[in-house]
Amino acid sequence: MFTDLPEAALRTFRSAVVDPVDFDEFWEATLGSARSLAASRPPVFTPFATALTSVTVTDVAFAGFGGDEVRGWLIAPAGVDVAATVGADGGAQLPAVIEYLGYGGGRGNPLSHLLYASAGFVHFVMDSRGQGSGRGQGAGSTADPHGSGPAFSGVMTRGIADRDSYYYRRLITDAVLAVDVVAALPFVDGSRLGVVGGSQGGALALAVAGLRDDLAAAVVFVPFLSDIMRATTITNENPYAEIAHYLSTQRSRVEEVASTLAYFDGVNFARRASAPGWYSAALMDPVCPPSTVFASYNEYAGPKQMTVWPYNGHEGGAMEDRAASLRVFAEVLRG
Amino acid sequence: MFTDLPEAALRTFRSAVVDPVDFDEFWEATLGSARSLAASRPPVFTPFATALTSVTVTDVAFAGFGGDEVRGWLIAPAGVDVAATVGADGGAQLPAVIEYLGYGGGRGNPLSHLLYASAGFVHFVMDSRGQGSGRGQGAGSTADPHGSGPAFSGVMTRGIADRDSYYYRRLITDAVLAVDVVAALPFVDGSRLGVVGGSQGGALALAVAGLRDDLAAAVVFVPFLSDIMRATTITNENPYAEIAHYLSTQRSRVEEVASTLAYFDGVNFARRASAPGWYSAALMDPVCPPSTVFASYNEYAGPKQMTVWPYNGHEGGAMEDRAASLRVFAEVLRG
Amino acid sequence: MFTDLPEAALRTFRSAVVDPVDFDEFWEATLGSARSLAASRPPVFTPFATALTSVTVTDVAFAGFGGDEVRGWLIAPAGVDVAATVGADGGAQLPAVIEYLGYGGGRGNPLSHLLYASAGFVHFVMDSRGQGSGRGQGAGSTADPHGSGPAFSGVMTRGIADRDSYYYRRLITDAVLAVDVVAALPFVDGSRLGVVGGSQGGALALAVAGLRDDLAAAVVFVPFLSDIMRATTITNENPYAEIAHYLSTQRSRVEEVASTLAYFDGVNFARRASAPGWYSAALMDPVCPPSTVFASYNEYAGPKQMTVWPYNGHEGGAMEDRAASLRVFAEVLRG
Amino acid sequence: MFTDLPEAALRTFRSAVVDPVDFDEFWEATLGSARSLAASRPPVFTPFATALTSVTVTDVAFAGFGGDEVRGWLIAPAGVDVAATVGADGGAQLPAVIEYLGYGGGRGNPLSHLLYASAGFVHFVMDSRGQGSGRGQGAGSTADPHGSGPAFSGVMTRGIADRDSYYYRRLITDAVLAVDVVAALPFVDGSRLGVVGGSQGGALALAVAGLRDDLAAAVVFVPFLSDIMRATTITNENPYAEIAHYLSTQRSRVEEVASTLAYFDGVNFARRASAPGWYSAALMDPVCPPSTVFASYNEYAGPKQMTVWPYNGHEGGAMEDRAASLRVFAEVLRG
Amino acid sequence: MFTDLPEAALRTFRSAVVDPVDFDEFWEATLGSARSLAASRPPVFTPFATALTSVTVTDVAFAGFGGDEVRGWLIAPAGVDVAATVGADGGAQLPAVIEYLGYGGGRGNPLSHLLYASAGFVHFVMDSRGQGSGRGQGAGSTADPHGSGPAFSGVMTRGIADRDSYYYRRLITDAVLAVDVVAALPFVDGSRLGVVGGSQGGALALAVAGLRDDLAAAVVFVPFLSDIMRATTITNENPYAEIAHYLSTQRSRVEEVASTLAYFDGVNFARRASAPGWYSAALMDPVCPPSTVFASYNEYAGPKQMTVWPYNGHEGGAMEDRAASLRVFAEVLRG
Amino acid sequence: MFTDLPEAALRTFRSAVVDPVDFDEFWEATLGSARSLAASRPPVFTPFATALTSVTVTDVAFAGFGGDEVRGWLIAPAGVDVAATVGADGGAQLPAVIEYLGYGGGRGNPLSHLLYASAGFVHFVMDSRGQGSGRGQGAGSTADPHGSGPAFSGVMTRGIADRDSYYYRRLITDAVLAVDVVAALPFVDGSRLGVVGGSQGGALALAVAGLRDDLAAAVVFVPFLSDIMRATTITNENPYAEIAHYLSTQRSRVEEVASTLAYFDGVNFARRASAPGWYSAALMDPVCPPSTVFASYNEYAGPKQMTVWPYNGHEGGAMEDRAASLRVFAEVLRG
Repeated sequence: MFTDLPEAALRTFRSAVVDPVDFDEFWEATLGSARSLAASRPPVFTPFATALTSVTVTDVAFAGFGGDEVRGWLIAPAGVDVAATVGADGGAQLPAVIEYLGYGGGRGNPLSHLLYASAGFVHFVMDSRGQGSGRGQGAGSTADPHGSGPAFSGVMTRGIADRDSYYYRRLITDAVLAVDVVAALPFVDGSRLGVVGGSQGGALALAVAGLRDDLAAAVVFVPFLSDIMRATTITNENPYAEIAHYLSTQRSRVEEVASTLAYFDGVNFARRASAPGWYSAALMDPVCPPSTVFASYNEYAGPKQMTVWPYNGHEGGAMEDRAASLRVFAEVLRG
Repeated sequence: MFTDLPEAALRTFRSAVVDPVDFDEFWEATLGSARSLAASRPPVFTPFATALTSVTVTDVAFAGFGGDEVRGWLIAPAGVDVAATVGADGGAQLPAVIEYLGYGGGRGNPLSHLLYASAGFVHFVMDSRGQGSGRGQGAGSTADPHGSGPAFSGVMTRGIADRDSYYYRRLITDAVLAVDVVAALPFVDGSRLGVVGGSQGGALALAVAGLRDDLAAAVVFVPFLSDIMRATTITNENPYAEIAHYLSTQRSRVEEVASTLAYFDGVNFARRASAPGWYSAALMDPVCPPSTVFASYNEYAGPKQMTVWPYNGHEGGAMEDRAASLRVFAEVLRG
Repeated sequence: MFTDLPEAALRTFRSAVVDPVDFDEFWEATLGSARSLAASRPPVFTPFATALTSVTVTDVAFAGFGGDEVRGWLIAPAGVDVAATVGADGGAQLPAVIEYLGYGGGRGNPLSHLLYASAGFVHFVMDSRGQGSGRGQGAGSTADPHGSGPAFSGVMTRGIADRDSYYYRRLITDAVLAVDVVAALPFVDGSRLGVVGGSQGGALALAVAGLRDDLAAAVVFVPFLSDIMRATTITNENPYAEIAHYLSTQRSRVEEVASTLAYFDGVNFARRASAPGWYSAALMDPVCPPSTVFASYNEYAGPKQMTVWPYNGHEGGAMEDRAASLRVFAEVLRG
Repeated sequence: MFTDLPEAALRTFRSAVVDPVDFDEFWEATLGSARSLAASRPPVFTPFATALTSVTVTDVAFAGFGGDEVRGWLIAPAGVDVAATVGADGGAQLPAVIEYLGYGGGRGNPLSHLLYASAGFVHFVMDSRGQGSGRGQGAGSTADPHGSGPAFSGVMTRGIADRDSYYYRRLITDAVLAVDVVAALPFVDGSRLGVVGGSQGGALALAVAGLRDDLAAAVVFVPFLSDIMRATTITNENPYAEIAHYLSTQRSRVEEVASTLAYFDGVNFARRASAPGWYSAALMDPVCPPSTVFASYNEYAGPKQMTVWPYNGHEGGAMEDRAASLRVFAEVLRG
Repeated sequence: MFTDLPEAALRTFRSAVVDPVDFDEFWEATLGSARSLAASRPPVFTPFATALTSVTVTDVAFAGFGGDEVRGWLIAPAGVDVAATVGADGGAQLPAVIEYLGYGGGRGNPLSHLLYASAGFVHFVMDSRGQGSGRGQGAGSTADPHGSGPAFSGVMTRGIADRDSYYYRRLITDAVLAVDVVAALPFVDGSRLGVVGGSQGGALALAVAGLRDDLAAAVVFVPFLSDIMRATTITNENPYAEIAHYLSTQRSRVEEVASTLAYFDGVNFARRASAPGWYSAALMDPVCPPSTVFASYNEYAGPKQMTVWPYNGHEGGAMEDRAASLRVFAEVLRG
Repeated sequence: MFTDLPEAALRTFRSAVVDPVDFDEFWEATLGSARSLAASRPPVFTPFATALTSVTVTDVAFAGFGGDEVRGWLIAPAGVDVAATVGADGGAQLPAVIEYLGYGGGRGNPLSHLLYASAGFVHFVMDSRGQGSGRGQGAGSTADPHGSGPAFSGVMTRGIADRDSYYYRRLITDAVLAVDVVAALPFVDGSRLGVVGGSQGGALALAVAGLRDDLAAAVVFVPFLSDIMRATTITNENPYAEIAHYLSTQRSRVEEVASTLAYFDGVNFARRASAPGWYSAALMDPVCPPSTVFASYNEYAGPKQMTVWPYNGHEGGAMEDRAASLRVFAEVLRG
């Protein structure tokens, strides 16, 4: 059954999310500081042995927020000799796809991520700090060495008392810096970069699109973290409900939480995006109800396109969304 | 929590499944008849366009049980020119992996199946007739043009009144004939074939291992359809519970159902298998409780190995099981 | 709690179900073909022994769609010597009630069906092909010897790719031909026939009322299969949700499914009905939400009456609906 | 899945229910007192109009426990002129079946109870005092004009602090006196009486069989109220769980409750029964787990027979149990 | 997620509950009769030993509706010598708080009720007759020696066929008379009385505020029993749903039930209240949806104040509501 | 229903939890280091205004693990002038009770904690770092400024890769140091200290009893964190299941996790305890199954007593357990 407004109303829905006056300043400072720390901690590339023949896998450890080590898989077409070319000049440069993960999951086994490299792209899958242990998801390898104030289970309310301490400040910064790492690879063409993800991964891809102006494409499936405060009032499903649970106990903090979240809401990132954006939304999605997806889509400042899946829940288009992303990247990134 | 016997008891558990005296006769007749029909209906290979560069995808339609059209994806390393070599002689021959699918799912989008071809194997994914519409699973493309008597929802009780009309007679026959198709490909080395699958896919791989003597490896994850009658008394989860629901109404048919199922039980296929077998079982699996998995494993007649996942449910090893299968195939099939 | 629109809105709700231009043509051809096959396969009547003294029970096997054998119970007041009069002329003729069954159930034990014969009516209970195995429902005895394309569990999506192959084409045809069988009984007065059923049984009674002009009454309790596509968007309950599940995987088939279903939607049968119709709807029904019931009621072309049960779910009026049907039949059929 | 011990263990299971030394004294006093009050309050018979022709329906109001008015339906074969014969002598005498109802339900609409009269028996359906309002069950018409101490929802703990005030003292007394009423009907042969019921109805039939020695048959389907204290420790399902909920709050009353219940436990009634008894039990029954059914069956002092339904839950044999009861009554009561 | 109307709509929501013309007459007669009986049955005070040093606990048994014994805890600051002063004149008089309990619970252990006496108030906690056995709630000690007609589990439908026999007539009368008892204590200042409660306790506090004009404050948290008939159509949660379940079976009694409930609906008590009232409502409350709370608040005739908890369910403000009540009582009752 | 072994088996159950050889060394080092940091960070006491008259409330901030600020409520009988006496000598010394909280909750509103001070004890309620946001629980005020590796939702797996980084190392250290703070209060008699808690609070009280030898009593209700690895295999309920979820993804870490947990398992603390211990366990507890409670009880090295609640779930004795604790403390601490 449909979980939200009728499609016609979704098309015209306008979010009431406030755009903080110092939003850009906050993120500039945040990213600037993180990049300073990262400058002195170059990424470490370690070949990862598999039985695969068409692609190579490299374990990457790079400095994210606070200079913390963040891990990822670099999966490259077999033709690319990652070990040899890193640090070297010359050679053909390939387009690259940076992917972010859904809530609770980690980068898992690299065998799970063969799609984009099998199509000739350099592919980087960023691990999500402190997550990576959800049943049925990939195992994570990245710590989040930052504590938090009182919080409900999950990461949605860690550090939420303050924009500076909020978990997603760190994760989004990691996501932006992952692109720095990929763009700097000698065998990557930095002008042909795409970001992609579903749910939390979509939220991260959207945030990156709002914080960088060098992307060629942003593909955002059933994104999480859009019109967050509204979301907490229209669904009982986690992870949005984690915030409602927190506020049911931390009763006096509603304004504080809303103030914090405004700096991390996909609606505000959408207002700043310039790269062409591809979204999907699902009309039977109880986790990321479609009005929250349209909340950011309808604000998206770049060229944009939306696929609506009427009979799907939070799986959205699933592999059909992936197939669409492949078509997008083939068209936009391959030139 | 653990859903079944302690691991030590699992190791020594012996199934009481009866081995029908005419089991072999039944399957010889069934397969013989199907192969006769298939002889005059050669498979049809149709290239399927994707944006992939490291593999090629071919849509295959072959004659399964009753000569019915069964579909599958043939995914080959880019080096193999499927179109050119089909029907031709000569050229290098590759090992091949035939994969079967879980209950309710279909072959879906070929982008979902990049693993084995990325490791240099010819890979064939067989669609499951009349399934292929489960939420969150791949879409199917294969009809099951055979009706049934009164049945409960799902396929577990379709035609269950009789071994000849039972749904799994058709699906298992398809699975055996899929190997015929792959073995006959000019670019495949018929002495280096492996079968693989999880849950229903594992049941099919096991059945094929029991019905063929030309396989080099059978990899069976958390297999379904083993010690079936016992399973209906120790779990309330579908699909085993479909049988319990059916018998709750068709009260007089318990013996009839047990008689039918004996011809399709993984325990009896295991008793006949000769290829090296790799199993997995999960101690928290409520869908295919581990004693039903050990029921067939402990009878398995070929060389065998078991991986036990203590903290997993029906996802079993998930991608870790897949990674293990890749190591197995690399070792056994690549020579 | 109420599951749908307020009652006032229900009273004026108009369905958007399209009426295909060749709807009548499709059903004329379908029924014509089935009747041709049935002409050469006369029904078989077999006395069924019970300890009952006030009624007699006869097992009936008649030719339904495709000439397939369909079973039913003929329950007659003890005064009627079914065995003697079948095939003979003369004797008093009684009014008759033809009943259809709910989703998943079968005709079960004839002891379950004593109501109408105890009131002096000849009563025929038609089995539902290929169903009849649901927990807590009656066992079925009728096969559905037709396969289907990829389908979700249950019968809602069997053959749904095409109006010709759709499951309900067969079941509705059976329902219409069951009336032929009853009307031809020498001890039945063919001008005093009523049809009755609840949920799927109500859908069948309504379909028969839309396809025949010789009925004296149609009693339709909380009917299923009305405004079907709308139903899939306003409830998560099976069986309507089976269609949503199917379309969540078979994503490209929404239009195809809608096209097929238009030929089987109760709204279109209601537009063609002429017999007096009695409906019931329940305001707390999550299975057949009341707006879908009013969708057909508000289009019903014959004289009509609606009972609304404000505090009931899908049980509707239950035995109170039955009692009302008895009053209707006593008034309309007994003359 | 099986909810209790394996069938072999059930066959030999012996209950630890204590048999109070003054059990017989308690019940003699209770019934004696109730019969004294009833002696001066003769039952009132009121014809109830239906459209039925094969049976007649009479509303009966008789004095139960405390002289309280208890209602029931008297359903008789059309040949019996109830109105005329009540209070008169002479005429043929028929066997009779007294039926009791499941937990929460009431006598409902008499159209629900056509089975036994359709087979030539006089049939009496006793309403359950103070129940009769459960969703999907029959409406009741009988008050329970006795209050209770602190109690959990439902009737299981009403008055449980004391054997004298316990709800089931009243209900069982009603059940015994209902047989007095039926036995005294001039058109009933008091030597050919049977009692029947399922779940709570089975518990009542069993209690009556333990408290009367004039019954020809007791038919007891999946009976409730046997080995009650054990039941509270092996199932979480209501109504047994009502006692567990009560004791979770009224923590000091465990012994008190056990003492009360011993006077109402089916195990103790079984120890005193002499009429031939037919039981059923279901191996997948989570409401009345089969070891509690065997607890009384294995103590049953009269001739006895057990039907085990391996694949059924609390529906047990459903209409198949009913059909069996009809065969039993036809054989035993018809002579 | 929000369970009801948006807050702005709640603020202006007007209930359609009818105000019976003889409402006041009914309650005057009811209370007059109860007070007559109580006049000759003075309360009994029994010291209750605890290890507490700052308060004393007294078990109180007083005559409620029908002269029935109702129990309560009298918890007084240690300075008050309850035993000595009862029945005596003189000494300082303290303000008092009378508290009522939530649905299903009883007065439990007095250690649960230390709040108001620890702040210097005499505190009386009234037990709820016939309840007091819900899991996780306090044990009750008060019987409800009145039976009922057919009813659904719980107390919502006990005696609902008639305003005179309805359960809440008795419980509300108890609540009013409890204030009589407290007001008559020599160490209590009868001009400084407050009532308080949440859910059912809030409903009772509100009813008392509507039936007495001598209260200084009424504190009503997420109250139950307001706009009851509307509530049954907008929530599936018990206890409101008990009425819906009852009416699903007792189908013809909708008007009867509505007529009865009008005499017990918080909307009508609110229309008569004069004491200052403090309410709370929770926007995510599925048990007492906020529109039913505002239904009475918007009619409340005295000075009033509302706290809205946006992120809470039926726990409402929980201890924050309690803390607010303490501030209210400190301000209003202490002078 | 009972969730675990029969009571007789519980009484003799012996846990297989390993006692690490360097357990004592680990905790000595941990506590020594924390106390060193705490030495230079004296606790800060801030009066907290309430309307209470019988007790005073003081907000305490003390240095816990790592010198991190940990908050608590100090609730003292009104006679104690906390502000004046802190830091001063002289005056009567009272016994004190230190309480720990259940999983997910925080210290909440001090009004929730009136019991022990109302009985004349100084009472300290320690907040749980980083928790304090669970629905229906108290709000927390204490941060946990330490990050973690990949973890599942909740705190059970934070830092679990290593005993040094594990969350409970910090929380248990806080708990031990809280006793240091209380023991040092001038108005507290350090020889009359008791610890108390339920569930996680019981686990902490037990850990403190195992790590200190100066306690006069340890009261442990339905304790969590005992025989942890066994617990994960016998219950699906959180929080134990958090570990199972983690291990379902972090498959290779089973040994690592078991190694870590041995340093925090209540079985090992019980082996070292010397203070008299009072336990409770509940036979229907699905959260902390009773065999895990008996696992530590049966190892408890001090004098001990166990209360078994047969009909309770994880609420255990609830206020009855509290009342028992009051009796224990009155007897043991008051002298």
